Amino acid sequence: MKIGIVGASGYSGEVLVKLLLNHPRVTLAAVTSRTLAGKALAAVIPSVRGADRGLRFSDSDPVALAAGDIELYFLALPHGAAATYAQALVAAGKRVIDLSADFRIAELAVYEQYYGGHRAPELLPSARFVLPELTPPAWKTEAKLVAAPGCYPTSILVPLVPLLKAGVIGREHIVVNSCSGVSGAGRKLEETFLYVERAESLKPYGLLKHRHLAEIEEQLALHTGAKTIIQFNPHLAPLRRGLATTITVPAARGATIETLYGAWRAAYANRPFVQLLPAGETPDTAHTVGTNRIDMSAVHDPRTGNFVITSAEDNLMKGASGQAVQIMNLWCGFDETDGLL
Amino acid sequence: MKIGIVGASGYSGEVLVKLLLNHPRVTLAAVTSRTLAGKALAAVIPSVRGADRGLRFSDSDPVALAAGDIELYFLALPHGAAATYAQALVAAGKRVIDLSADFRIAELAVYEQYYGGHRAPELLPSARFVLPELTPPAWKTEAKLVAAPGCYPTSILVPLVPLLKAGVIGREHIVVNSCSGVSGAGRKLEETFLYVERAESLKPYGLLKHRHLAEIEEQLALHTGAKTIIQFNPHLAPLRRGLATTITVPAARGATIETLYGAWRAAYANRPFVQLLPAGETPDTAHTVGTNRIDMSAVHDPRTGNFVITSAEDNLMKGASGQAVQIMNLWCGFDETDGLL
Amino acid sequence: MKIGIVGASGYSGEVLVKLLLNHPRVTLAAVTSRTLAGKALAAVIPSVRGADRGLRFSDSDPVALAAGDIELYFLALPHGAAATYAQALVAAGKRVIDLSADFRIAELAVYEQYYGGHRAPELLPSARFVLPELTPPAWKTEAKLVAAPGCYPTSILVPLVPLLKAGVIGREHIVVNSCSGVSGAGRKLEETFLYVERAESLKPYGLLKHRHLAEIEEQLALHTGAKTIIQFNPHLAPLRRGLATTITVPAARGATIETLYGAWRAAYANRPFVQLLPAGETPDTAHTVGTNRIDMSAVHDPRTGNFVITSAEDNLMKGASGQAVQIMNLWCGFDETDGLL
Amino acid sequence: MKIGIVGASGYSGEVLVKLLLNHPRVTLAAVTSRTLAGKALAAVIPSVRGADRGLRFSDSDPVALAAGDIELYFLALPHGAAATYAQALVAAGKRVIDLSADFRIAELAVYEQYYGGHRAPELLPSARFVLPELTPPAWKTEAKLVAAPGCYPTSILVPLVPLLKAGVIGREHIVVNSCSGVSGAGRKLEETFLYVERAESLKPYGLLKHRHLAEIEEQLALHTGAKTIIQFNPHLAPLRRGLATTITVPAARGATIETLYGAWRAAYANRPFVQLLPAGETPDTAHTVGTNRIDMSAVHDPRTGNFVITSAEDNLMKGASGQAVQIMNLWCGFDETDGLL
Repeated sequence: MKIGIVGASGYSGEVLVKLLLNHPRVTLAAVTSRTLAGKALAAVIPSVRGADRGLRFSDSDPVALAAGDIELYFLALPHGAAATYAQALVAAGKRVIDLSADFRIAELAVYEQYYGGHRAPELLPSARFVLPELTPPAWKTEAKLVAAPGCYPTSILVPLVPLLKAGVIGREHIVVNSCSGVSGAGRKLEETFLYVERAESLKPYGLLKHRHLAEIEEQLALHTGAKTIIQFNPHLAPLRRGLATTITVPAARGATIETLYGAWRAAYANRPFVQLLPAGETPDTAHTVGTNRIDMSAVHDPRTGNFVITSAEDNLMKGASGQAVQIMNLWCGFDETDGLL
Repeated sequence: MKIGIVGASGYSGEVLVKLLLNHPRVTLAAVTSRTLAGKALAAVIPSVRGADRGLRFSDSDPVALAAGDIELYFLALPHGAAATYAQALVAAGKRVIDLSADFRIAELAVYEQYYGGHRAPELLPSARFVLPELTPPAWKTEAKLVAAPGCYPTSILVPLVPLLKAGVIGREHIVVNSCSGVSGAGRKLEETFLYVERAESLKPYGLLKHRHLAEIEEQLALHTGAKTIIQFNPHLAPLRRGLATTITVPAARGATIETLYGAWRAAYANRPFVQLLPAGETPDTAHTVGTNRIDMSAVHDPRTGNFVITSAEDNLMKGASGQAVQIMNLWCGFDETDGLL
Repeated sequence: MKIGIVGASGYSGEVLVKLLLNHPRVTLAAVTSRTLAGKALAAVIPSVRGADRGLRFSDSDPVALAAGDIELYFLALPHGAAATYAQALVAAGKRVIDLSADFRIAELAVYEQYYGGHRAPELLPSARFVLPELTPPAWKTEAKLVAAPGCYPTSILVPLVPLLKAGVIGREHIVVNSCSGVSGAGRKLEETFLYVERAESLKPYGLLKHRHLAEIEEQLALHTGAKTIIQFNPHLAPLRRGLATTITVPAARGATIETLYGAWRAAYANRPFVQLLPAGETPDTAHTVGTNRIDMSAVHDPRTGNFVITSAEDNLMKGASGQAVQIMNLWCGFDETDGLL
Repeated sequence: MKIGIVGASGYSGEVLVKLLLNHPRVTLAAVTSRTLAGKALAAVIPSVRGADRGLRFSDSDPVALAAGDIELYFLALPHGAAATYAQALVAAGKRVIDLSADFRIAELAVYEQYYGGHRAPELLPSARFVLPELTPPAWKTEAKLVAAPGCYPTSILVPLVPLLKAGVIGREHIVVNSCSGVSGAGRKLEETFLYVERAESLKPYGLLKHRHLAEIEEQLALHTGAKTIIQFNPHLAPLRRGLATTITVPAARGATIETLYGAWRAAYANRPFVQLLPAGETPDTAHTVGTNRIDMSAVHDPRTGNFVITSAEDNLMKGASGQAVQIMNLWCGFDETDGLL
């Protein structure tokens, strides 16, 4: 099966390229970029030297892509740009997995509040937000277009959703602190992302209304049946890759650490990419880098009555491109772990 | 005035040495260590080469130190060891500033619960925990022995105390997440502190009953008149130095961001080492490294009703040795900023 | 085909485990360790959580290993220890690929000068040092035991050997400067390898008679037919993984940059793990991390008459475990790149 | 004495500001910038919050600066721009210490070859390149304008010049490899300087005709009386600050390591900022960061007949701003170490 990547010059595009070059079930047949057309893949992504099968960036005219024989496209584009490609490709009957925010928010008004005008609102009904461990499997037949989740939302939804559904925790006073590696910002040429500014620096940012909040809270509501407002405090840490999330939430009356782990086990038994660590053992971003895993654990604090829930993932893998490949695997009927172990 | 340092081979000892070699009002007359006696200071702390005034480590027999003419000693020792030195030095009428935990906890039972048996409990009544911006000035005449605060407690108490006292925030649902640089663990030979393990790694640790909790909650109670239980979630970040704290707490009824900043301004007007950043500008550990400052800011989140309060400091400066020098300055009647700007 | 790893608790052992768990042609059937016997693989190497196929460390009694049905063993042990295992395993007819220094030096006296007494000198005649791109293929049938090259030697021999053989450079005034990531030192509990000491630090070390010199110079002589003495200046750099080598050497009379690249192309045409970058483009360790490649380029400096030759590799891949797997692939008749792309 | 800084928004400007705010003999009276005029110093350089004495950036019109009462200016500007300010300020009788390359090269043709046209060639005769430990003291009275040396040249000239003068080494086959921290590139918004690109990366760059070569070789010739061509191989290392240089050079006939250290001691006895480490102990950039020192050592390799000479410095201190302050101290008759210990 031939697949293509539109816009592979960013960090998540680069990881996608590596994963798909090595995937046992698909052939990476096109990597497109308006600005890089004609360049050898390895000239732009030097880490694939010798493994790039001679691929070159091709031009990325949506109409031409729609006319070709590639069956599935990943869009690794800035939001806004993705919608335009999705229109052409979906119209031509291609499957599309979009890594941008364009189709993550089902409710148009919420999207517009966080991101501005939407370029392809007519596609929203046929788009599905798919977090494979949480989204009911009907998407595999319904979707024409899949929105892959963001890095922060994945690190928060995977631990929280089963606990809210099982009533192990309440909906009040949920406090989420996350620390992200710098690649989370993409390859942006801003002074704050220079090596000298980031090395040896840790700082909160985007404390109010970080864009991922829209996605997190919409999904919490959809999965758990009620509006849930969280405090979300993102931080920038001197990591190339990695995302650590620590959630503090009051335990529901009668809930114990065993109840909590029981809810997790019920939700994630046999899910290859969710690893539950024992209470007291904390996940470490470094242990997840290069993998598609999310590692999680929790403790109950009898002094405060809170659970403290921790997760770690690679922001470019389970938080972006690895998860997008996982989605493809499920959508196309491959083994869920193909190309991801 | 002659001063000495007992136990200068750790990271906070090293910073103390540098600060005191350059201090305009005191002469660093002795640096002691049982294991390093006889070695040149610069051989152990290469960053002071050429600036070490020919000092060598001397032996650290408490009786001999007590008999000498040095008026004030800093103890940069592990807890337990510090108490033994304090006994001899206080008995001889020396002023002692202790950087360990031994005299930070006024209530003996609490100390014992977190640290085990105390070697010099008889000194507790004449010891004072001094966080210069918070502790009422009577300590300057009362204390025979001063406990310098820990790094996490400083980063938490400075922002919280004035807000609790002013009723700007409540005492429920206080959630504190902190990220510390690796030097916070001291120069420990454990696998987890190796470069290869820490670089590119972020992880929570010590989630329940971190030792600094004893100190934080005792001080919160002493300063604000009521027991206050916090959720304290420490993390290890790939920084050599630096400590970032993010506190989420529900705003008291009627409190606004202006009320909050008003309480801070009232408490810290003209305090040279507390910098209030405007709401929306977040402190960055990198901006405080090498300084004795704590930078703070806050925002009000209308969605949750919480304040999110952030602070940053250098864990070895305002979080340890810089603050110890600040204490000396105040105790000895020097300018508070001597040797610290 | 079943294979095993003896001593997988170090950094190169960890990388071996990951490579072999994913290898399409072999089954990792045993991972042994005296100190870790009984522990789950994922408990010791958290990055393989969920991908460890339930493996546990088993005991590593050489006699028991020799009696089992595993056909090939990798030894990821300190030098000295490796020789003892090699004796038992080779005697039992197992294939052995040793990542230690024990069988890298053909001449016993040289080994002893650099490493002390040898525990299994009788095996030296049946052992082969194999750098796949350089060693003539007869080893595949002759060897009972293969010594995989060290990280520094690989980064130096691959660029130098074809140039010496082709007479593009002379044998005088060869100056090699290398910068290694900290994992090159293994998981050693020494103060100098703590995060706080290494981060933001760059320093030379081992300037005279670094142990790898024995291997480098023996191989240079064997491949090029004459004794060749080099100046080898290793440095420690704040990288987890990666090794950059810069070689300055006078161009032979008449040699040009085209001659040099011609010699490289003749030697490495179609070798999948040697990448030649154009003159003027320099290799970057970051581009090789996680790959089994060595990237190389060179420039000619008309001011000095020197070539400046640069290479980069991942010290744990092409410099250790990746190369060991490449050796297995060739030895067992698999595709050279199996499990390595 | 009032001093000013023109162009303090780069990394060396930032370090200059900190040094001069704390200098005991001068008052930092103006910090100028065309683009930042009006902004508080601490808003641009957050690390000086609370210590900036209320200073704001002022406009930097050369004519206005020339008319004011500030006696000495540091120029922390890109090359080219510096020359324009120097014209106006020197004409007005101000002392000028320039941190750019504009007046480092005495010979105009060489400057033009490396940097293009010179904007103020008429000033070259009254300008002096001053490396305080090497330049004969006549400059203190002769100079109207002082060029502070570059970071690489300092790290190379300090070790080499006394050895060439004493005939301890020859002029052939001098190979210099240097690793620089990323701040050496200034605050440039280029993709290669992003955190994600630089962290965990080491690479050579600028292998032929790095601009600093002009300065290094001119100074070698001036100090040692003969043209000396070196191979200069700079590398970029993941350090914020720091510069390590390793020089390989054949020992002159009869020269020993004692001869070498003897030449160094004769040249640098009592120089506070040159530290000679014993042979076998290597300098570490981390030990020099924040100091104005250059640490040096050497070994003799009997196998090759070479000396391997190593130096380390902070590229922003001894390699830029610290050295500029040292120059001011000497020029103005202050103690050489004022504000620098």
